[in-house]
Amino acid sequence: MGSSFGQIFKLTTWGESHGPALGVVIEGCPAGLPLTVAEIQAQLDRRRVGQSKVTSPRDEKDQAQILSGVYEEITTGAPISIITYNKDADSSKYDNLRDVFRPGHADYTYWAKYGHRDHRGGGRSSARETWGRVAAGAIARKILATAGTEIYGFTREIGGIEMETFDRDEIERNLVRCPDPVAAERMVEAILRVKEEKDSLGGVVEARAIGVPPGLGEPTFDKIDALIGHAMLSIPATKGVHIGGGFEVVRSRGSEANDWFYAENGRVRTRTNNHGGILGGITSGEEISVRVAVKPTSSVERPQETVDTSLNPQTITVYGRHDPSVVPRAVPVVEAMLALVLADLLLLNRTARI
Amino acid sequence: MGSSFGQIFKLTTWGESHGPALGVVIEGCPAGLPLTVAEIQAQLDRRRVGQSKVTSPRDEKDQAQILSGVYEEITTGAPISIITYNKDADSSKYDNLRDVFRPGHADYTYWAKYGHRDHRGGGRSSARETWGRVAAGAIARKILATAGTEIYGFTREIGGIEMETFDRDEIERNLVRCPDPVAAERMVEAILRVKEEKDSLGGVVEARAIGVPPGLGEPTFDKIDALIGHAMLSIPATKGVHIGGGFEVVRSRGSEANDWFYAENGRVRTRTNNHGGILGGITSGEEISVRVAVKPTSSVERPQETVDTSLNPQTITVYGRHDPSVVPRAVPVVEAMLALVLADLLLLNRTARI
Amino acid sequence: MGSSFGQIFKLTTWGESHGPALGVVIEGCPAGLPLTVAEIQAQLDRRRVGQSKVTSPRDEKDQAQILSGVYEEITTGAPISIITYNKDADSSKYDNLRDVFRPGHADYTYWAKYGHRDHRGGGRSSARETWGRVAAGAIARKILATAGTEIYGFTREIGGIEMETFDRDEIERNLVRCPDPVAAERMVEAILRVKEEKDSLGGVVEARAIGVPPGLGEPTFDKIDALIGHAMLSIPATKGVHIGGGFEVVRSRGSEANDWFYAENGRVRTRTNNHGGILGGITSGEEISVRVAVKPTSSVERPQETVDTSLNPQTITVYGRHDPSVVPRAVPVVEAMLALVLADLLLLNRTARI
Amino acid sequence: MGSSFGQIFKLTTWGESHGPALGVVIEGCPAGLPLTVAEIQAQLDRRRVGQSKVTSPRDEKDQAQILSGVYEEITTGAPISIITYNKDADSSKYDNLRDVFRPGHADYTYWAKYGHRDHRGGGRSSARETWGRVAAGAIARKILATAGTEIYGFTREIGGIEMETFDRDEIERNLVRCPDPVAAERMVEAILRVKEEKDSLGGVVEARAIGVPPGLGEPTFDKIDALIGHAMLSIPATKGVHIGGGFEVVRSRGSEANDWFYAENGRVRTRTNNHGGILGGITSGEEISVRVAVKPTSSVERPQETVDTSLNPQTITVYGRHDPSVVPRAVPVVEAMLALVLADLLLLNRTARI
Repeated sequence: MGSSFGQIFKLTTWGESHGPALGVVIEGCPAGLPLTVAEIQAQLDRRRVGQSKVTSPRDEKDQAQILSGVYEEITTGAPISIITYNKDADSSKYDNLRDVFRPGHADYTYWAKYGHRDHRGGGRSSARETWGRVAAGAIARKILATAGTEIYGFTREIGGIEMETFDRDEIERNLVRCPDPVAAERMVEAILRVKEEKDSLGGVVEARAIGVPPGLGEPTFDKIDALIGHAMLSIPATKGVHIGGGFEVVRSRGSEANDWFYAENGRVRTRTNNHGGILGGITSGEEISVRVAVKPTSSVERPQETVDTSLNPQTITVYGRHDPSVVPRAVPVVEAMLALVLADLLLLNRTARI
Repeated sequence: MGSSFGQIFKLTTWGESHGPALGVVIEGCPAGLPLTVAEIQAQLDRRRVGQSKVTSPRDEKDQAQILSGVYEEITTGAPISIITYNKDADSSKYDNLRDVFRPGHADYTYWAKYGHRDHRGGGRSSARETWGRVAAGAIARKILATAGTEIYGFTREIGGIEMETFDRDEIERNLVRCPDPVAAERMVEAILRVKEEKDSLGGVVEARAIGVPPGLGEPTFDKIDALIGHAMLSIPATKGVHIGGGFEVVRSRGSEANDWFYAENGRVRTRTNNHGGILGGITSGEEISVRVAVKPTSSVERPQETVDTSLNPQTITVYGRHDPSVVPRAVPVVEAMLALVLADLLLLNRTARI
Repeated sequence: MGSSFGQIFKLTTWGESHGPALGVVIEGCPAGLPLTVAEIQAQLDRRRVGQSKVTSPRDEKDQAQILSGVYEEITTGAPISIITYNKDADSSKYDNLRDVFRPGHADYTYWAKYGHRDHRGGGRSSARETWGRVAAGAIARKILATAGTEIYGFTREIGGIEMETFDRDEIERNLVRCPDPVAAERMVEAILRVKEEKDSLGGVVEARAIGVPPGLGEPTFDKIDALIGHAMLSIPATKGVHIGGGFEVVRSRGSEANDWFYAENGRVRTRTNNHGGILGGITSGEEISVRVAVKPTSSVERPQETVDTSLNPQTITVYGRHDPSVVPRAVPVVEAMLALVLADLLLLNRTARI
Repeated sequence: MGSSFGQIFKLTTWGESHGPALGVVIEGCPAGLPLTVAEIQAQLDRRRVGQSKVTSPRDEKDQAQILSGVYEEITTGAPISIITYNKDADSSKYDNLRDVFRPGHADYTYWAKYGHRDHRGGGRSSARETWGRVAAGAIARKILATAGTEIYGFTREIGGIEMETFDRDEIERNLVRCPDPVAAERMVEAILRVKEEKDSLGGVVEARAIGVPPGLGEPTFDKIDALIGHAMLSIPATKGVHIGGGFEVVRSRGSEANDWFYAENGRVRTRTNNHGGILGGITSGEEISVRVAVKPTSSVERPQETVDTSLNPQTITVYGRHDPSVVPRAVPVVEAMLALVLADLLLLNRTARI
């Protein structure tokens, strides 16, 4: 259970880190949407390993094939199946981990839950699974574009280094996807340093949605913020989510936190945006912003104490090809999850009124 | 849509702030669970208004009646319907708000979504809806108790005043449910002060689960942290969620953040608990802790600028009976949501192995 | 589990035959639909006991109250909770059945599943539960009316007596809801005769939908015929479902069974309707017809052999107030289920195209 | 929407008749189940085209590959993705059908729903989709086997020729899967005759489950008969479903239809089985039997009147490679659907009691 997400636009991902292939099946994509594999690949390339010196050297092209649901480059309403075959999996590095639990990883908890598991590269718990999310997210973005909605994301912080300036155009110009080029340079240096020290860094990713129609989100349990929380905390290595002002809002007073309404061009707007584009779980039309905490990569090439499946103490060193910080590659994943939530709610909202 | 939560143990809440009644229907409660209405009422009394000088003076007894699913004080497996009738709703205070949008509230977004709405007391968007969550949560706690799992919660911070000491026994001894009696006193003062100033305060609630079996949570999209994020951000007025170390973990290094495993009494344990009881979205058996940001109450009895449904500018003052800070009453709601997530996953986990 | 039905327009029923009340919660009803309790009551009155000499003499007025989701007689998009209190339950007749399994009833299977059960009047397995379906169905009919779709139903056969003529206007003019007044008279006689003989009769109910938009139904598993099958076989005492020609079509040849297309007034039509308004699980716009087999009432006031919960042999006679044939009262239930399926698919279909 | 089925053991099928591949993703298969691709292939081979002179001559080997969820021939609890590549699709036969609606097929209804469609071989509406159901059903059978439950099916009737004797061993010995070898011979002859006449035949398939644990099925809407109805009527070309005695029971009296209980070897049994193994929607432990009406193949190589997408009248002849009767190949599909329903309910039933 748990490999599906969404109510109308619903994806199901499958595949293991070192299995033959990975994929995603998307149900509920409306018919009539123009869609090429190149549009999907463009997003996947932003997520893939081996794209720069700050990411894992595992070399996966992550080439997507569309196997169903699209005919003559237009969606048909049928399930869209997208697949990629693993090419560069090296399971030999995992032979010594078959019966030992890596600290910080899901080895022990999967073993506790299932008894039997594919230990190679973390098996199903590997972040390689997010490939399918980004592929589906590329389609979600196209649906959102029909409503004038756009999603983008960036790195706010890595290893304690915070961005201080914001220029959207800078984001994709540096290796860490930071809108502050000066901070970006320091982040890259910090990553390379920690890589040499066989350690890892965490950080903060932000995603934003602009041009969002008011009225998206379902009251009570499926508030858009609740679904965003669900989406973001389902990404491996995340530990927290802030909507709009997040934990900073709690120290303001009601009279300060409330955003006043005014009318502009026949549209209701707010003068400030402490609410992060969401009121009562429903979009107001103002910009949505979300911040996600990403913990430092758990795989570090240092001796660590642990136990094995017989509960005997063990000392292990985790070899393999890992990202010294997954933050830059998490950006397209966070964006994809935001796009998936919004596209699903956009479609669902068509049923809100008679 | 959106008024249901859970997969096996599934609740559906219904009712408006000033409607005749509020209720919850719970599907999937296993048969054979002893259950009395008094056990449910005990939790509801912790949530209700009018319980002290720091809460809203609206006087609702919130008396629960069980209408189905329980026979001779034992559950039958049939849906459990629980209801309470509204007794002290005063809709007259809302007459001037029929066509005007209160800042910080869902008035505008509901209008944008649905066109037609019950404006009285916020209608469906009112936090009165959480009554049903707490009622269902009381049952979830009983299910968890059969597995040795216990949930408790408390206030970490109100209006910038943070707890500095922790004594679980102190929590229910003060009006704000803070485990630090000195901080509690300052919090109460701050609330009474802001109440006089016709303003409001936010804060941080924490909930913990102890005695959790390892193996709960479903990989990929229904990680337990994802479901907790969903649950918490569905509570009105919440703006962020931290799992375990939350945003603080992002500044540590992987070698520091990883919790090492050891064996104790035939059980796998971790020496530290930066992971907050969850690895790869699945419980490790260590304590789960969650922090939730609660914004200051949006209803403040001060003039605010806004617009009406014709987009004309308006100045309104929101009268009515409101909590100067909802944080103390949010504690049982946050606990209930954590209990609901865990009880559901406990049942679902019975299907994990052949 | 299992007390909910539908994907967008989703109902959850609750309540037992002899519990304090019965109810239904409807999620996903679009906002802006005019709705009065009288419209719901009109349908409920067609289903209630005590309406004539051919139905059970239990006297339940089945008076509905709307507790949420409707404001000033217009739906708000919030869950609609509808309730009725049981007034004439007489549990004394069931004292001897606490530990004994009535043949033909769900007593044994519920006991096998749940261990603990409310045996009074069949508890949750009683057809009294269908009250909520008819209440929700009344709302579904109003949604369908906005698309020009109308549902009606009738009795085809009781106790082997089949209708031979069809006049829709006759249906509600006789006690058995048969469109053939001559057959109706014979059916009434047969029911009264079997009632005296302390036995019971089964029959066949048909429901039809006219003015159905083409394009409703979701390919593969949620074909409209599949959902209709699900809906109909969830009604107590049903044993089979025929769509359109049903089992009669299997003896024709492809060249005979195929309905040829032609165009009329800019619309695609078929010259015949063997397909029963459904092709590939999706509506064609032609009339939908469904037949449902209803078994004879299991409660007969005659000695029957059975066992008790200790597996000791017992002979029981089932007293109580029962319908000698539930077929006439099944008509509004079958109609309601067809309306629920269609209304749900009508809303879902809004998401089919970009 | 609509390409998924099941609640715990949940499958999602994807793929078109003439697309590059077809597949199924199965969520919720418990970990620890031994599983080989050969076990899946054995069932697929019973369904595939080209297996005999009475089936379509299209030559698809339907070779399955397992891409995830199984490690060292044991399931891991992760989604199981199974795929087959189309090898012998010949789309040229469909060039003239791009804009014309074949009578009896879903061409018009898909066009009405989606606007854009893959017309080749029926696209998504093709019965080729059932490949994935049979693959998933093979796994469901293995789950059921752990509870001692076995499923089998057979042909009752083709083209009006009914079986008259029953010998289970005969079923797989003849080309039409009929337990009566004499009737089987006549059915084969009838199929070959109709094939020459460029026409087609329908029939009736029956499936049975033996060794079923009592207590499976969820009250109210997810009665096992309701889910079976859903499952069977989701199979292409089906028009009706009978549970146990089906439409024949309606002519008996309650005193005849009720099956009396007795105890045998510490188990509750019934002396007769008119209830078809299901009471109140829940299994009694007696044999379950289901009959499904299968209409004659819609593709017949004869001129038929129809219209095109511009609503102009057309006369078409449907060429291509079709089954003169799909009944024999429907047997493994009907079996698979019954296995899927039962396996899902078997797992879900683990949550019925505390």
